Amino acid sequence: MEATFGFLLFDQLEELDLVGPWEMIGLWCKEFSGPNNLITVSQTGGLITCSKGLKIASDFSFENSPSLDYLLIPGGMGTRTEVNNKKIIQFIQTQAEHCSVIASVCTGSFLLQAAGLLTNTKATTHWKSLERLKQFPEVKVVEKRFVKDGNIWTSAGISAGTDMALAIIEDLAGNETAGKVQLHAEYFPSSQLYADISNIKELPEYLKD
Amino acid sequence: MEATFGFLLFDQLEELDLVGPWEMIGLWCKEFSGPNNLITVSQTGGLITCSKGLKIASDFSFENSPSLDYLLIPGGMGTRTEVNNKKIIQFIQTQAEHCSVIASVCTGSFLLQAAGLLTNTKATTHWKSLERLKQFPEVKVVEKRFVKDGNIWTSAGISAGTDMALAIIEDLAGNETAGKVQLHAEYFPSSQLYADISNIKELPEYLKD
Repeated sequence: MEATFGFLLFDQLEELDLVGPWEMIGLWCKEFSGPNNLITVSQTGGLITCSKGLKIASDFSFENSPSLDYLLIPGGMGTRTEVNNKKIIQFIQTQAEHCSVIASVCTGSFLLQAAGLLTNTKATTHWKSLERLKQFPEVKVVEKRFVKDGNIWTSAGISAGTDMALAIIEDLAGNETAGKVQLHAEYFPSSQLYADISNIKELPEYLKD
Repeated sequence: MEATFGFLLFDQLEELDLVGPWEMIGLWCKEFSGPNNLITVSQTGGLITCSKGLKIASDFSFENSPSLDYLLIPGGMGTRTEVNNKKIIQFIQTQAEHCSVIASVCTGSFLLQAAGLLTNTKATTHWKSLERLKQFPEVKVVEKRFVKDGNIWTSAGISAGTDMALAIIEDLAGNETAGKVQLHAEYFPSSQLYADISNIKELPEYLKD
């Protein structure tokens, strides 16, 4: 399909927030007739350094980026500074005018909030940041792995973005296509629990099921 | 801990093969007292382009890389050419002499095979490549999400590397540390099935459980 799916890059983003969804969307794009243009875009178009040190080169800057049809925004410690970066907020707002999906992973939802896109909108974030998101009275915070409200999708922490990406593919291209991506990615993850999560009060109930 | 965990980069590696484990190992390294030196290394030390187009800048080349204590090798279409690249095979062999863990994800196991590290060793790979791995009579192919045999760890396709990474952390640092990483990464993935996998004969049984 003739469309552009953009992934937003900024310093100190969390690696798996970006690449879990990137892999699923990328498989859809390259193998199963998804959008023909899969790109990364950052403010300056150069290298960014992620939270755990991975260095990624952007395909485009805000200035030379093509117009996006879909936008995914990762989270990470970098969001704490980027919420005050007018250029990134403005880029998100401009793209939101014509994107049919705006998705965030983890604390990426705080960038959506700063862009005014979460007003009267259901949204979630990393479980440790739920209370912080609830400080914005206009946001309808839900404690789910991911949630869709209109064209806004938000997911919980880090690895939850991968689950959201498959749900986005199902929503846009159908169950069979999402199944093909899941199968190719061998995304049938283990349910092994290492953490004893029974006594962590602030952990959402859905994680304890 | 004073140690170096290296992730091997090469063109056309599969993004999530690399970054699923990178995130888990990275959380261990940066937040929970894992190895203090987490690096990427490629033959030339420059930019590599992954299978779905993500561009990653290497921290080191084979020439200036520090000696590794742990090595992870992703898979992807690039492995089909890299198995014939003497420099990459030699780098793996040299590091294997002193690494206490050598791990591969997906078709990364074919690089281990080419380096002679899978002789009389249990190993696995992406489900679509299991038959191809069985063509090497010296490899004891097992159909599991991941398998450890001595200091060699191999995992099945793409997303299975994330599960393996947590198991490696448990093995090296204990259950409690693996639990902290899992919790921080919110790695409690959905078990939702999009694919109808009941009729795919060549799919390993463990995926159908």
